[in-house]
Amino acid sequence: MRRLGFTLGLGAAVAALPAVAMAQDVTTVIEAANSTAFIFNTLLFLIGGFLVMWMAAGFAMLEAGFVRTKNVSMQCLKNIALYSVAGLMFWAMGYNFLYSGGSEFIGIGAFGPYGMDPVGLDAGSVEASAQLASDLVGTGYSTASDWFFQMVFCATTASIVSGTIAERVKFWPFILFVVVLTGFIYPVVASWEWGTGFLDDMGFSDFAGSTLVHSTGGWAALVGAIIIGPRLGKYVGGKVHPIPASNIPLATLGMFILWLGWFGFNGASQLAAGTIADVADVSRIFVNTNMAAAGGVIAAIIYTQLRYKKIDVTLAINGALAGLVAITAEPLAPSVGLSVIIGAIGSILACLTVPLLDKFKIDDVVGAIPVHLVAGIFGTLIVPLSNSDASYGVQAIGVGATAVFVCAISAVVWFLLKVTIGLRPSEEDEIVGLDQAEIGVPAYPEFVPG
Amino acid sequence: MRRLGFTLGLGAAVAALPAVAMAQDVTTVIEAANSTAFIFNTLLFLIGGFLVMWMAAGFAMLEAGFVRTKNVSMQCLKNIALYSVAGLMFWAMGYNFLYSGGSEFIGIGAFGPYGMDPVGLDAGSVEASAQLASDLVGTGYSTASDWFFQMVFCATTASIVSGTIAERVKFWPFILFVVVLTGFIYPVVASWEWGTGFLDDMGFSDFAGSTLVHSTGGWAALVGAIIIGPRLGKYVGGKVHPIPASNIPLATLGMFILWLGWFGFNGASQLAAGTIADVADVSRIFVNTNMAAAGGVIAAIIYTQLRYKKIDVTLAINGALAGLVAITAEPLAPSVGLSVIIGAIGSILACLTVPLLDKFKIDDVVGAIPVHLVAGIFGTLIVPLSNSDASYGVQAIGVGATAVFVCAISAVVWFLLKVTIGLRPSEEDEIVGLDQAEIGVPAYPEFVPG
Amino acid sequence: MRRLGFTLGLGAAVAALPAVAMAQDVTTVIEAANSTAFIFNTLLFLIGGFLVMWMAAGFAMLEAGFVRTKNVSMQCLKNIALYSVAGLMFWAMGYNFLYSGGSEFIGIGAFGPYGMDPVGLDAGSVEASAQLASDLVGTGYSTASDWFFQMVFCATTASIVSGTIAERVKFWPFILFVVVLTGFIYPVVASWEWGTGFLDDMGFSDFAGSTLVHSTGGWAALVGAIIIGPRLGKYVGGKVHPIPASNIPLATLGMFILWLGWFGFNGASQLAAGTIADVADVSRIFVNTNMAAAGGVIAAIIYTQLRYKKIDVTLAINGALAGLVAITAEPLAPSVGLSVIIGAIGSILACLTVPLLDKFKIDDVVGAIPVHLVAGIFGTLIVPLSNSDASYGVQAIGVGATAVFVCAISAVVWFLLKVTIGLRPSEEDEIVGLDQAEIGVPAYPEFVPG
Repeated sequence: MRRLGFTLGLGAAVAALPAVAMAQDVTTVIEAANSTAFIFNTLLFLIGGFLVMWMAAGFAMLEAGFVRTKNVSMQCLKNIALYSVAGLMFWAMGYNFLYSGGSEFIGIGAFGPYGMDPVGLDAGSVEASAQLASDLVGTGYSTASDWFFQMVFCATTASIVSGTIAERVKFWPFILFVVVLTGFIYPVVASWEWGTGFLDDMGFSDFAGSTLVHSTGGWAALVGAIIIGPRLGKYVGGKVHPIPASNIPLATLGMFILWLGWFGFNGASQLAAGTIADVADVSRIFVNTNMAAAGGVIAAIIYTQLRYKKIDVTLAINGALAGLVAITAEPLAPSVGLSVIIGAIGSILACLTVPLLDKFKIDDVVGAIPVHLVAGIFGTLIVPLSNSDASYGVQAIGVGATAVFVCAISAVVWFLLKVTIGLRPSEEDEIVGLDQAEIGVPAYPEFVPG
Repeated sequence: MRRLGFTLGLGAAVAALPAVAMAQDVTTVIEAANSTAFIFNTLLFLIGGFLVMWMAAGFAMLEAGFVRTKNVSMQCLKNIALYSVAGLMFWAMGYNFLYSGGSEFIGIGAFGPYGMDPVGLDAGSVEASAQLASDLVGTGYSTASDWFFQMVFCATTASIVSGTIAERVKFWPFILFVVVLTGFIYPVVASWEWGTGFLDDMGFSDFAGSTLVHSTGGWAALVGAIIIGPRLGKYVGGKVHPIPASNIPLATLGMFILWLGWFGFNGASQLAAGTIADVADVSRIFVNTNMAAAGGVIAAIIYTQLRYKKIDVTLAINGALAGLVAITAEPLAPSVGLSVIIGAIGSILACLTVPLLDKFKIDDVVGAIPVHLVAGIFGTLIVPLSNSDASYGVQAIGVGATAVFVCAISAVVWFLLKVTIGLRPSEEDEIVGLDQAEIGVPAYPEFVPG
Repeated sequence: MRRLGFTLGLGAAVAALPAVAMAQDVTTVIEAANSTAFIFNTLLFLIGGFLVMWMAAGFAMLEAGFVRTKNVSMQCLKNIALYSVAGLMFWAMGYNFLYSGGSEFIGIGAFGPYGMDPVGLDAGSVEASAQLASDLVGTGYSTASDWFFQMVFCATTASIVSGTIAERVKFWPFILFVVVLTGFIYPVVASWEWGTGFLDDMGFSDFAGSTLVHSTGGWAALVGAIIIGPRLGKYVGGKVHPIPASNIPLATLGMFILWLGWFGFNGASQLAAGTIADVADVSRIFVNTNMAAAGGVIAAIIYTQLRYKKIDVTLAINGALAGLVAITAEPLAPSVGLSVIIGAIGSILACLTVPLLDKFKIDDVVGAIPVHLVAGIFGTLIVPLSNSDASYGVQAIGVGATAVFVCAISAVVWFLLKVTIGLRPSEEDEIVGLDQAEIGVPAYPEFVPG
C-alpha cells in the first residue's frame, strides 16, 4: 500500500498545466481535483470492499463443496456467522487496535464508540462543516469507507480458519475463537504494518496482506488443526484415508468468487484512485493478480498430471488460490511474466504441502494451510525480487513475528476452549454429522441415500 | 433518499476555495465539478443497479434452495421470468406511474414511449445538444441510469412474492400477477413517496424502501398465500408438518448474493455520489447496512439456540435478510450500534412471526412474510428514532396506506385469477411436482432416489 | 465502440462555460477534465473487466449444470483451465495480434514483452514521468486496464467452445485448441475491426462483438462438434435421445452470472465514461442489454409453451443468452422497444436451431451454437436497422469473413489434434465419465445412486 504514485501523479498533472495559467488558477484546479480524488478514493474502497465482502460467499461455497454432505449446513452456518461476528468485533475493538497509532506493539487507544463522519458532513454549524470537509479532503477518503474495507479483510482471516478445522469442531467454540481472532489477533498483527507499527518502521512490505491476512489466518488454522486433531477415520492404522469433497461445482464457484473478489482485495489496497498514476497502478494490480492465479492453475494441472497421472480438480482450485495469495504481498511491482511465475511457484508449494500435512497427521479439510499459510509466506519472502524497497531480512522478520504472535495467542485460546467448553462434538455426533447433531437441518435431505 | 448532502457538500467545496480566486474561476470550477458530479451520480446508479439486478439471482438461489426438489426447475423458471416481466412492465407502464408528477394518487401521465437520452447526447443540432448537455447536468444523472436503478427495485417486489407462494401456484397465473404488481401496484405505491406524491408531501421517510418495496412485496405475498392456501400436507389434522428445504448451500449462496446486492440497494439510494458529503454518506450506508445484517444473523442464532436448543441455519439466513430489510428505511442516520440493534430486532420479529403464520395456516415457503413484511414494517416505524425529520404518526400512515392499497388490489387480482384460469395445479400435479407437470425438466434427474 | 460521444460531450461542456471565463481558464479546466476522464475511462475498463471475468464463472456453472453428473468435475476443470490459458496466451501473443496496427490481415507486430505503464508512472526521471502522464491522458486510459478488458473478451470465446463439445473431448486436446483460439484465432479476427484492420476500414459495425467474439466462439464450436462427433447414445437408430441436464439451478445461476457480466461486456465497450455523453450512452447500453435479455426470455417461454405445451426452462435460460448475444452488435443505437424485439427474435432463432442441429446429428451439449453463433449472426446483420452508419452488405462481409477464417483454422487444428494425440476418450472412458477417467474426483460422490 504505497502512496508514491499519488504525489507523483498530482505533480505530473500540475506540471502539465500551461505556463500561462496564473497561480490562483492552479490552486483552484488543485482544490477541485482534490475533492474529485476524495470521491474516487472512497469509491475505490467501497467497490473494493463489496468485492472482498463477496469473498465471504466464496469461502462459504468453497468449504460447503469440500466438506461431506453431513456437515454442509454447519459449514454454511459457520461462514454466515463468522462474517457477522467479524463485523461486530472489528467495530467493537478491532479498528481501534489496528489504528492505535504508532510505535506500540498493542495499541490501547481511543476505545470510544467508532466514529463515522456525520450525515451529510453536517457537523453542527456551517463553519464546522466546511472545516470537516476541508479536513476530509486532506485525509483522502471517508472514514466509513476505510472502516468497511478494513473490516472485510479482518473477516477473511476467520474464513481461512473455518475451512481447515471443518467437520469436527462444535459451533460455539469456533465462534468464540473467531471473536478473539477478529477482535484482537488480526487487528494487532495488521497494526504492526498498516497501523504504522514496528514492522512498518522497519520497512516490512506486504501490499495487501500475504502475511498480515493470509498467513495470520493460516497460522491460526494450523494451531487449531493440531490442538483439535484430525477427523475420525482420516488417519487410521498409519494410513491416510482421503475423504472426498461432496460437491465440486460448489467449490469451483467458490474459487471463482474468490478470484473475482481478489481484484478488490489487491486492487483497492492501492488505497487511492484519484490520479492517473494511482489508477494506472490499480490496473497493473488487476493484471498481475489475474495472471498469478492463472499461473497457479496451470502449474497445479501440470504438476498433478505428471505426478498422479490424473488431474486433481481440487488442486487446480487450490492452485488458483495459492497463486492469488502468493502475489498479494506485492501485486504492483512485478512484471506480468514474474507474476505468472510467482503464482506458479506458490501453487506448486501448496501442492507439495498437502502430503506433508498428512505425514504429520494434520487434517486440513479444504487445504487452507497450503494455500494461505505456505503460499503467503512464499509471497512475502519473494517481495524484494521485484520491489527494491524491501529486504529479505525484514521480510523474514515480519513472517516470523506474525508466526510467533499468532501461534502463541491461538494456542492459548484453542487450549482454553478445549479445557472449558470443549472443542469437539462427541464421537457419535461427529459420525452422524454436525448438521444433525447441532443444527437439525440437513443440507440435501432428498439426495442422500439411506 | 435525501439531497441535503449534495447542497452542503458543494457549498463546503466552494467555501474551501481560496479568497484570491476570482469570481469566474469559481464559476468555471463549479461548472466542471457539476459535469463530474453528473458522471459520478450516473455511475452510482449503474453500479448500484447491477448490484440490485444481481439480487434477482439471489432470490432465485434462495428459493431454489428452500423448495423441494420436485419444484426447483419451476422456481428457477419463475424467477427468470419475473425479472424479465418486471423489466418489460416497468418500461411499458411502471416508470410513468412512478414519476407521474405530483400530487395525484395514481398518475396518468405521459404514456408515450419511454424516452432515454439520445445517443451521444446528439439532439440533432450542435445548439440542441449543448442545451441538452446543460439540462442534464442540471438533473444530475442520465435518464437511462435512473430508469435502470428504479426498474431493478420494481423487480424485487415480484421476487418476494414468488418465494412465499412457491410449490403450489401454476406458472401463468403467477406471471399475470407479476404483470399487475410490476406494472401498476408497486409503481403507484412508490410514486406516493419517490414520485413526490402524498406521502412525500406529508413527510413520510423510507430511504430505500422498507415499506415501498419490501412491505409491498410482503403484503402481496400474504394476500396471495391466504387466497391460494397452503401446500398439500403442510397442515393436516391440526398439526404443522414442516417441509424441509432441499438445498441449504444454494439458499446460503442466495443470502450472500442478496447481502451483496443490498449495498447497491441502500447505497445507491443516496442518489448522488458527486460530492464528498454524498460519497461519505454512501459509505455510512454501506457500514450500517452490513452491520444490521450482522446483527440479524447473531440475533437469530442466539434466539434459535436458546429456544430450540439447536441453531436453525434457515433462520440465520432469514435473520440476515430481516436485518437488511429493517435498516432499509433509514440506513444513513443511525449510528453503527443502533444499526446492529435495528437489524437484531428485525431478525427476532421475523423469527417470532414464523410460528404465528403456521398458527393461522398461512404457508410461506421461504419466510418472505416474516422477512420482508414484518421487518419492513418495523424498520419503517423505527425511523424517527434516528431521523428527527420523521414522525411516528406519518410513518404509520405510510405503512397503513401501503397495506390497504396493496392488499385490496392484490386480493382482487388473485381472486380474479382464481375464478378464471385458476391458481393451483391439480392435486396430482402438485404431488408429482411442478417440474414434471408444467416444465418437463427435472432439476436434478440423476440424484433423486426412485 | 464509437467515439462520437466523447468529442461531442467535451464540446458541449466547453460550450456551456460562461463567456466571461478567459482562455486560460478554459484550457486549465479542460486539462483537469482530461485527467478526470482518464480515471473514469480506466475505471470503466476495470469494472467492466471484472464483470466480464465473472462471466467465466457463469459459463462454468451453466455448463456444469447442463452436463451429466459423471462429467461435472471435468467441465469445472476445463473452465478453470481455459480462463487461465486465455490469460497466458493473450499476454504471450494475442494482444500483439489484436493491436498489430493497421491494414494487414494478420499483424506480426511488436512481439516484445507485453508492456504495462510503469509503477506510479515513474518513468525514470521527473521529465519522462510528466511526459508519460501527459501522453497517457491523451490515450484516455491505462494500458493495463485495456489489456485486462480485452483479455476477458478473449477468454469468452473459449468458454463458448467448451460447452458445445463437453462430455466427449479429452482435457489436453481441448486445452491445445484453446491455446490456438485465444492466442491466434480470436485476436486475428478481432484485429480486423478493433485493431483498425480491413473490416474497420470497410465500415463494419460490431459494438461489443456479436460476430467478433460470439460467432467466433460459435464457429469454432460448430467445427469442433462436427469433427469430434456426437456423444455416445445421443443419436442411435435414426432417433434423437435427449440427454437431460443434471443440475438446473446451477445452470440458472450461470445464466444470471452471464446476464450480470454482460453489463460489463456491452457497457464498457463504450470505451469511455469521462463525459456526460459517454456515461449517458453507457446507461442506454445497460437498459438495452437488459431488455434484449428480457425479450429473449419471454419469447422462449411463449414459444416453448405453444410448441411443446410445456415450458422448457433450459430454453428460457438460453433465450436470455440469445437475446444478450443478439443485442451485443449494437446495444447503443436501438430504442428500448427495438432492443426487446431484437432479443426476442434472437431467442426464437436459437430455439429453432436446436432441432435443426439434431437433424444433422450435431451434438451441442449446452446449446452454444444456437445462442452464440446463430443469434450472433442475426444481431450483426440487423445493426443497420438502428445504426445508419452500418450497411447490410458490409455486415454480411464481416460475418462471412469471420466464418471462413475461423472455420478453416479451427478445422485444421481440430483435425491435427485428432490424428495426433486424439480428441475423444475411449468408449469405456466416455461411458464411465471423464471425471473418473481423467480426473479421479467425482463431482457429487455421495449423491449418485449406485
